[in-house]
Amino acid sequence: GEVTTDGADIKIKTKGGLEIKTADDKYSMKIGGRVQWDYNYAELNGEADEDDLNIRRARIYAKGDVGEDWSYKAQFNIGNSNGGTPEDLYITYNGWGKAAKVTVGKQRVVFGLEDFTSSNDITALERSGITEQYGVARQDSIRLHGQVGMVNYSVSAYEDGAAAGDDDFGLSGRIAVVPVQDDDMLIHLGLGYTERGGDRSATGIEFAANFGSFHVQSEFFDEDQGTESRDGYYAQAGWIITGETRPYKDGKFKRVKPGSSDGAWEVFVRLEEGDGNHSDIELGRVDASAYTFGVNYYANNNVRIGMNYSDGDSNEAGSTDSGEEFRLRLQLTF
Amino acid sequence: GEVTTDGADIKIKTKGGLEIKTADDKYSMKIGGRVQWDYNYAELNGEADEDDLNIRRARIYAKGDVGEDWSYKAQFNIGNSNGGTPEDLYITYNGWGKAAKVTVGKQRVVFGLEDFTSSNDITALERSGITEQYGVARQDSIRLHGQVGMVNYSVSAYEDGAAAGDDDFGLSGRIAVVPVQDDDMLIHLGLGYTERGGDRSATGIEFAANFGSFHVQSEFFDEDQGTESRDGYYAQAGWIITGETRPYKDGKFKRVKPGSSDGAWEVFVRLEEGDGNHSDIELGRVDASAYTFGVNYYANNNVRIGMNYSDGDSNEAGSTDSGEEFRLRLQLTF
Amino acid sequence: GEVTTDGADIKIKTKGGLEIKTADDKYSMKIGGRVQWDYNYAELNGEADEDDLNIRRARIYAKGDVGEDWSYKAQFNIGNSNGGTPEDLYITYNGWGKAAKVTVGKQRVVFGLEDFTSSNDITALERSGITEQYGVARQDSIRLHGQVGMVNYSVSAYEDGAAAGDDDFGLSGRIAVVPVQDDDMLIHLGLGYTERGGDRSATGIEFAANFGSFHVQSEFFDEDQGTESRDGYYAQAGWIITGETRPYKDGKFKRVKPGSSDGAWEVFVRLEEGDGNHSDIELGRVDASAYTFGVNYYANNNVRIGMNYSDGDSNEAGSTDSGEEFRLRLQLTF
Repeated sequence: GEVTTDGADIKIKTKGGLEIKTADDKYSMKIGGRVQWDYNYAELNGEADEDDLNIRRARIYAKGDVGEDWSYKAQFNIGNSNGGTPEDLYITYNGWGKAAKVTVGKQRVVFGLEDFTSSNDITALERSGITEQYGVARQDSIRLHGQVGMVNYSVSAYEDGAAAGDDDFGLSGRIAVVPVQDDDMLIHLGLGYTERGGDRSATGIEFAANFGSFHVQSEFFDEDQGTESRDGYYAQAGWIITGETRPYKDGKFKRVKPGSSDGAWEVFVRLEEGDGNHSDIELGRVDASAYTFGVNYYANNNVRIGMNYSDGDSNEAGSTDSGEEFRLRLQLTF
Repeated sequence: GEVTTDGADIKIKTKGGLEIKTADDKYSMKIGGRVQWDYNYAELNGEADEDDLNIRRARIYAKGDVGEDWSYKAQFNIGNSNGGTPEDLYITYNGWGKAAKVTVGKQRVVFGLEDFTSSNDITALERSGITEQYGVARQDSIRLHGQVGMVNYSVSAYEDGAAAGDDDFGLSGRIAVVPVQDDDMLIHLGLGYTERGGDRSATGIEFAANFGSFHVQSEFFDEDQGTESRDGYYAQAGWIITGETRPYKDGKFKRVKPGSSDGAWEVFVRLEEGDGNHSDIELGRVDASAYTFGVNYYANNNVRIGMNYSDGDSNEAGSTDSGEEFRLRLQLTF
Repeated sequence: GEVTTDGADIKIKTKGGLEIKTADDKYSMKIGGRVQWDYNYAELNGEADEDDLNIRRARIYAKGDVGEDWSYKAQFNIGNSNGGTPEDLYITYNGWGKAAKVTVGKQRVVFGLEDFTSSNDITALERSGITEQYGVARQDSIRLHGQVGMVNYSVSAYEDGAAAGDDDFGLSGRIAVVPVQDDDMLIHLGLGYTERGGDRSATGIEFAANFGSFHVQSEFFDEDQGTESRDGYYAQAGWIITGETRPYKDGKFKRVKPGSSDGAWEVFVRLEEGDGNHSDIELGRVDASAYTFGVNYYANNNVRIGMNYSDGDSNEAGSTDSGEEFRLRLQLTF
């Protein structure tokens, strides 16, 4: 039978989800999601703390355009322990073009490269303990953001879900520049600043680069909270054995797209040191040194299998705590 | 590439959501939703009680037709505090045509015009404290309803979620008549009756009208509960500055559709007086007098920005409580 | 207007939900769900325990194929008391074909015919108290399963949600054979085995058959848990008055599809006896004897109305408990 429409011409597509849009680009809807199943095994001081098959993330989203100037995204969790909660829930005004958009609602507060990168697209299976400490994650917020030439910027004002009462106002900004971007090489530099919780202020510095199928990424954070001071950094290097290049778009990296139907293979190593939230290796919020190495297999654009091993030691005075984690993930996006 | 179907011809459409139906009208599905972000600031006796950016409503729904005689709607909440709960969840038998449909499941119990009108479509951002007191809202129920000429009727039998134990049976009916409906003028009259909770019975009277781009709406309710008696009313008047007319369909109003790509502007004022649930202006369930005025900007059929200011005083003996609220909303439906 | 696609040719369809797939069968998505509204009235020893209109199940799912080798299903609950929780949430590797698939995630552990059959498709409105006792239901699991000629098999390793701490490992397997399958007759034989919770092991035997529009189905289970031992069986016989045959596919039965637009009618009776979870008739986990009879009306492929009456007596020493239930269901799938 025939498929037609009563209005403007329509384009549709499926890559496991659904995309529909009018040919005049005025209206669209996309439905998609992610499922991440993990087996993880973690030890603290040689004693097993975790040994689980569990759903790491399960989300479904709808997003779309309504008219020329407005768009939305509604993404919600459907996993075991967080089912029904919203992850993204925002409305964007695009009327001024790509250089200046305003987004209102629950959304990521951009402060740091690894934090801004989707969990589908980060190289390691889990973000570093450094990002976990300094990243602001998602907040009910108003955000001005845009892309102007090689510059990507974002400024967020938010109600800080991690702060109490009258001190719950937060302000975060980040600027990323890509001075070099061609087929062989990409250089990314970033700078971020956050004020939140009445007495917390943090600065972040980002460096990342692609040299063909090699890529490096590092971030340093420094935070003052009242009379306390914290800092930490991570540095990561990866190699895509099958020769693909790590994709980059609008101030952040995307996951590797295999160049052949055999899939793509990637190996990486990450070092981190300093005050962080090292809970993946069971150390918690301490000053620690840790390393992670792992391998990713990208079966196609939708399926990724990853395996990581992490090991770290507390640097706190008097502590000899040592933790490690093995993690295996099956990830499917649609 | 080509898009075809193996069965009956198909029509599809997007206005930010998705509509698909067979050309023979036997089967269909529609996916859509709403996102309402509010900033609200409220004071009780001059002291700030609320000062928040928060998600007022976030919902996604699927609805459709299965065969000639049956249809369904499943709408669920994805907001912060109510994520995962159903809002509408019902099955309708349409086999007798528009004059008599039977709907089983969680659905709105129709009793009152403002209560029946979608939160996307009401003129003020929040329903009056009078409607909040007497409206029955959604209940697990069986409903007989239909449209016969100028008459729209609804009768619901339900398990009253607000009542306890053996007294949880409720029965509500409402009839609406539109004696005049042409391009210049529309007159709506309505009458409702509710028995619930063993000892509660309420009557409601509705009047509403369009005179070109002017519209008025008023409801009066009277309720007896055991030896107690309550009553209250609201009256509202609005003007669509850009000249559009307030749409009306099947016993209730819809939101303004802008006649040009510049959008539509509307101003309104609402007075209310009597026993109500005046919690928006922080007074709670008391006898109060209040007014609201506001402005709506309908950017297109999907996006509305509204701003309201409300002020009211308690009429309870001995009380000098006074409350007010400012509310700003960004609403997107898809 | 025209509907086209930029990539591979596409087929779409609606039967109240949505199906979209590429003509080369590489990518697809399907959105669907179920709504089951029940009125049920139950008595224990002649005293009314339940008298409710309530949502029995409400679910929405997305499932699809991503590339040639991978597929997923994400089904979540949207009912009153379980909204937001996942029901199915899994990823399947299909690269070896129909004979051997591997599925990772939250999914049904196959052990028993009635347990494996969808709640949309079982003959009675509720599964027998025997199945409720011995079935393993859904678990976070890894499953190897497939169809080879007349044989359907499944082996699941899982974290047993019903078991505590270190004893939460479970292993279940089931094999089903269909030695006879033609237009007039179908014979199904099945055998299952489960080890779980450290000290629990169970065996199940299945027999089912179609003789034209008559069908029978029976299962026997025997379980040892530590020093305790349990067993029980049910036997069910049905007749599709309007002459249709009960459909069967891949190791389980599907619900009756009416052969005419007048719908299909079915009557059935079920006997059960032994240690079970007889909570539908208010007896709980005891040794009991019970019978159920009922009638199903399949209005079309999407809508079913069913009515059941069940009555049973405890066989526990010294107990004279007797329970009964009347249940009426309106079910719509899309």
